[in-house]
Order: sequence, then structure tokens, then C-alpha cells
Amino acid sequence: MIRIAVDAMGGDDAPHTEVEGAVAAARELDVRILLVGKPESVRHELARHPHRGLPIEIVPASEVIAMTDSPTQAVRKKRDSSVHVAAKLVRAGDADGFISAGNTGAVMATAYFILGTLPSVDRPALAAPFPTSRGSVSVMLDVGANVDSKPAHLEQFAVMGEIYYRAIFGTRRPRVALLSIGEEEVKGNELTREAFNRLKKMELNFHGNVEGRDVFAGTADVIVCDGFIGNVALKISEGLVEHIVTTLKEGLSSTLRAQVGAVLARQAFQDFKKKMDYSEYGGAPLLGVRGVTVIGHGRSNANAIKNAVRVAAELARCKINEKIEQELDAVTAAARS
Amino acid sequence: MIRIAVDAMGGDDAPHTEVEGAVAAARELDVRILLVGKPESVRHELARHPHRGLPIEIVPASEVIAMTDSPTQAVRKKRDSSVHVAAKLVRAGDADGFISAGNTGAVMATAYFILGTLPSVDRPALAAPFPTSRGSVSVMLDVGANVDSKPAHLEQFAVMGEIYYRAIFGTRRPRVALLSIGEEEVKGNELTREAFNRLKKMELNFHGNVEGRDVFAGTADVIVCDGFIGNVALKISEGLVEHIVTTLKEGLSSTLRAQVGAVLARQAFQDFKKKMDYSEYGGAPLLGVRGVTVIGHGRSNANAIKNAVRVAAELARCKINEKIEQELDAVTAAARS
Repeated sequence: MIRIAVDAMGGDDAPHTEVEGAVAAARELDVRILLVGKPESVRHELARHPHRGLPIEIVPASEVIAMTDSPTQAVRKKRDSSVHVAAKLVRAGDADGFISAGNTGAVMATAYFILGTLPSVDRPALAAPFPTSRGSVSVMLDVGANVDSKPAHLEQFAVMGEIYYRAIFGTRRPRVALLSIGEEEVKGNELTREAFNRLKKMELNFHGNVEGRDVFAGTADVIVCDGFIGNVALKISEGLVEHIVTTLKEGLSSTLRAQVGAVLARQAFQDFKKKMDYSEYGGAPLLGVRGVTVIGHGRSNANAIKNAVRVAAELARCKINEKIEQELDAVTAAARS
Repeated sequence: MIRIAVDAMGGDDAPHTEVEGAVAAARELDVRILLVGKPESVRHELARHPHRGLPIEIVPASEVIAMTDSPTQAVRKKRDSSVHVAAKLVRAGDADGFISAGNTGAVMATAYFILGTLPSVDRPALAAPFPTSRGSVSVMLDVGANVDSKPAHLEQFAVMGEIYYRAIFGTRRPRVALLSIGEEEVKGNELTREAFNRLKKMELNFHGNVEGRDVFAGTADVIVCDGFIGNVALKISEGLVEHIVTTLKEGLSSTLRAQVGAVLARQAFQDFKKKMDYSEYGGAPLLGVRGVTVIGHGRSNANAIKNAVRVAAELARCKINEKIEQELDAVTAAARS
């Protein structure tokens, strides 16, 4: 049975949400859960959910990483944090992967420090799902693990993203594209022009450049970019959704007539919110580290935690890191010959 | 009276929308309009609007730049295009500025080629308005005039953006920020870290770094970034708004109950659409060229055209380019001393 370590102390509402999501995962998915955190707090939360007979155990960790801790502090100073302990379980082979909804920078740094990168990978990449108008999901990477990427890094991101997309979304030949500012090959900046040149020679279903407006249109399945760009794209999207929800709410409560309308249309709004909801998509895997790592949003609800466990379990089950190694070795061999 | 040349052949629906917007501008604003385009088409459209006594004249241009023309083609091959002629009116001093809702790349290239840059400016920048949850407008620049910017370019963008913001939005000390992926000075990439270092020493109301999620929150008035980043940010926002409107519309027409709700809440939706509507904000000025140039969205409606004329007129009236020259000279002098 696949074993997933869950950082019980990570999210804004930890360990409440983490424990609820972990119990749901243990009940609904074929996984054993290692709940990592302060034993008293975790046990207290666990007591609130019926879990007899479920494959859940508690692994103690005495420290908690705060949202305000810097990645360096998290890695160097808090060596018994729940993230540290969860990553060490993976390194020791006692877990097949771990998830955390904690401080993203700290989780990435800890995973990187404890697990290291795969031999063929220069830099790990964080892969975030975006819902699209086609009803499909586009995955963008990197969304913030690295900045100032070189073309060779984008090449590796493309390979890792494609394997991840196949594993989780079941598409046999995902369309891989480069995020740029024009569709033609010559458009973009120095980085994307050279990366385009490399990607078009690879064994990929390469779709060329896509622009920002194509991301939510579902024009491509895997969208490759430098982590600075990807992070701005992700955060501006989150900010815009918030802005729109606020603006709509204000409008819909401004008159009695609008209020009645909003009540009648409630189901439609709930469906809309569900479609916009990141929690359905199960977090963002940090690809390229030596061990399955999935990072959830700080505001993850129990459903998001459960889905992150599902994604981590599927990535472990399909041996994603072995596949990444094989394919990157093939790319290197092809480049040499 | 300020004279603004209007590219009558630019937008998706030209010259229909352009002429309607130009007539409204001539009626409501204190400006003389030079409608540049194919005389028969423009005259035909003009006949549909009462305009007797309004300060409007037609300036003939025999060619039209298509949305599919490359910037190079537009500049080199179509020397009698409406954009070319409009820019030449500005260069000759026969107009105080020009606006176009045409092919953005072609308009930028033509303006750059015909007008040149201001002596103190290395690279022009396109400044796009974003509506915010505070009800204010944030201006982001550059959103696509340049890529691979250097720190000195971002410094110039900051100065130009600040002057533009003061001129159009009337804020005495606009908050200027750098678009990055973390608030702390050390966060970001090579470009932003060096730019941060320069901006904090300048005579600006410098607000430090903002993240993607702050753009629509209205945390800063002027947001400075490289044109690749800004273009992705702008386009992904446009794409997301479309995605959300489509998703909501589908939901609201899915059941009779939701349909009735949508009818009752119609005013709220219309207010929402108006708030999201770029047309209120009057297009994006191309700052740093030697002559006022304002570029509208290809899907500009008549109101957007009128507002672009208003912005161009205000920039001409306040002598924005003289101010940019003065302030950049002061920056250079300060750097030397």
C-alpha cells in the first residue's frame, strides 16, 4: 500500500483541515497516511473524526514552520519541523511521498535540501494546475521554484511537465507549449526563442508558443515558463478571481431585486465557485526532487488535502521519478548523438 | 485647441467605431479631430452621425494595416497606412498626438520609427490600466513594447509611469512599485533586485515590490516590470475575465430558476461588466516616443475611442514629453553627482 506523509501543521487552519482531509483520504483512497506534527494536537483533531480501522498513524514532529519563516530559517533552524520530518520519511523510504499546505517557499527549500534533485535534473519546478474553458486542466511550470532559468532548464521542465500530465490527467500525448508574447517562433525574449528552438527538436507534442490569454482557453495542456513569469501569472490570476468575486458580491447585494436574483441563481454561483476552486485539482507537485512532493495552497480545505494525497499517491504509484530520469537521459543521449 | 489624429482604420470594426467615437470626442471634449483613413469610407461613416459645426476633418491615407501584418511589414511596406499618416501628422506638428486601436505591434513599431524616442529615453514603454478593488486604477508598464529590459530601463519606466499617472489620474505622489515574486528586497530575479536597488534611491514614492496578487488589489498606482512579464500579466488577465464571463453565463442559463435569477440581477451584472471594461480607461499610451501616442484595444467600442482621445489630449495639454525629459535629465544628473 502506498504511504503518504501529510504535514499536519502546514495550512492556515492546521491541523484541523489537514486531519480532516487525511482521514477522508485514508477512507476513500487506497493509501496509508502518516500524519506528521505535534502529537497532542493531531491526536485531539483525530478524535473528532471516526477513523477506527483506517490506515493512519501519527509521526511526531516538535516544531512548526510559520508563514513568516524564511526558507533559510525553515531549513537551518527548524530541523524537527513537520515539513522536515515528512521529507525525511520520504528520504528514508518510510513514505512514498509527502504533501504540505504550508509556507510554499519553506516547503520547497526543505524538500530540495532533504531530498536533493534527481541526477538528470538541474532545477526542480513547481507545476500548478489552471482550470480552462474547455473543462480541461492546463498545467503551468515553473510557477516559482526558480528564477532566471536557462533554455536547458525549460527543456527539463517540458519533459517533467509532460510526464506529470500523462500520469495525472491520462492524456497520451499532452500538448506542450511555451509561454510567450506572440505565437510565432521569433516572438518572445532571448530565453523563449532559444527554448523554442530546443523544444521543437524534442520528442514532444510541441504546440509552439502560447500567449497569456491562451492559458485559460485550454490551448495547451502543459505550459512551460521561467518561475518568475509563472509565479506572476499564477498570483495575478488568484488576485483577479478575488477581485471579481468581491465586485460581483457587492453588486448582488446592492439592491433587493439583485439579492432575490442572487438567491435564485445560487446554484449557478456555487457551480461557478466550484469550477474556479483550486481545491479540486490537488495542489502543485514539486517536480525534479528525489521523492514525491506535493504542495497545497495555504488556504486548502479538507477536499484539497485529500486531493493532494491522491495526486501524491498516483505520482508514487506510476514511479514518476524513474520516468523523469529515463526520459531526461534519452534527451541527453539524443543531444550528444 | 489641441488636435488629435485618430487612426480611423485601426480596430476590428473600423472605421465604424472610430468615427462614432471621434464624433463623440469632438462634441464632448475640447479637441479638434483629424480622422485619418480612406476618405470614402470615413466620409460614409461620418454621414451617419450629425457633426455639423464640430471640429472634425478628414486626412486621407490610402493603405490599411491588417491585424496579420508584422510590425516590419507595417513600417516598411505600408508607408501610406492610416497609422503612418497619423504619426507623420504628429511629427510635422500638425497634430498634438494620435490614437489607434489597430494592430498593437504595428502601431508601436510605426510610432517608434516615425517619431523616434525622446533624447533621455532608451526604450519606450506601453502603459496599461488595470481596474482595482479599491475603485482606483493601477497602471502597469511595460506591457509589451520591449523584452529583456535592463535595470536602467525599469528606472526610466518608473519615471515615465509616475508622470503619466499624475497627469491622468491627478494623484500628487503616486505609489510606484516593482512587480516581483515576493515583497522583500531580496526576492525576485536579477533584474528586479538591481532595479529595486536603483528605485529606492530615486525621488519617487517607492512602495517596494508587489506580487501578482496585489495588482487588482490596488496596492500600488504605478507597477513597473519588463515588457515580457507585463504582456503575460495583461493577456492572462484578459483571458481569465473571458473565461469567468463564459463560465458564469453558462451557469446562469442552465436552469429556468437561474435564468430568472439572472434577469433580476441584470443591473448588478451590467455594473460588473462596466467595472471590468477596459473601455472606460482610455487605452494604453506608448510613453517615451517623441509625440503623444495612445493605443486602444482592437475591440475598442466608441466610448473607448473617445476616452483614448481624451487621454491623448490630456497628455498633450500637460506637455508630458517635456516633463519626462526634465525628470530623466534630473535622474541622470543625480546619478553623476
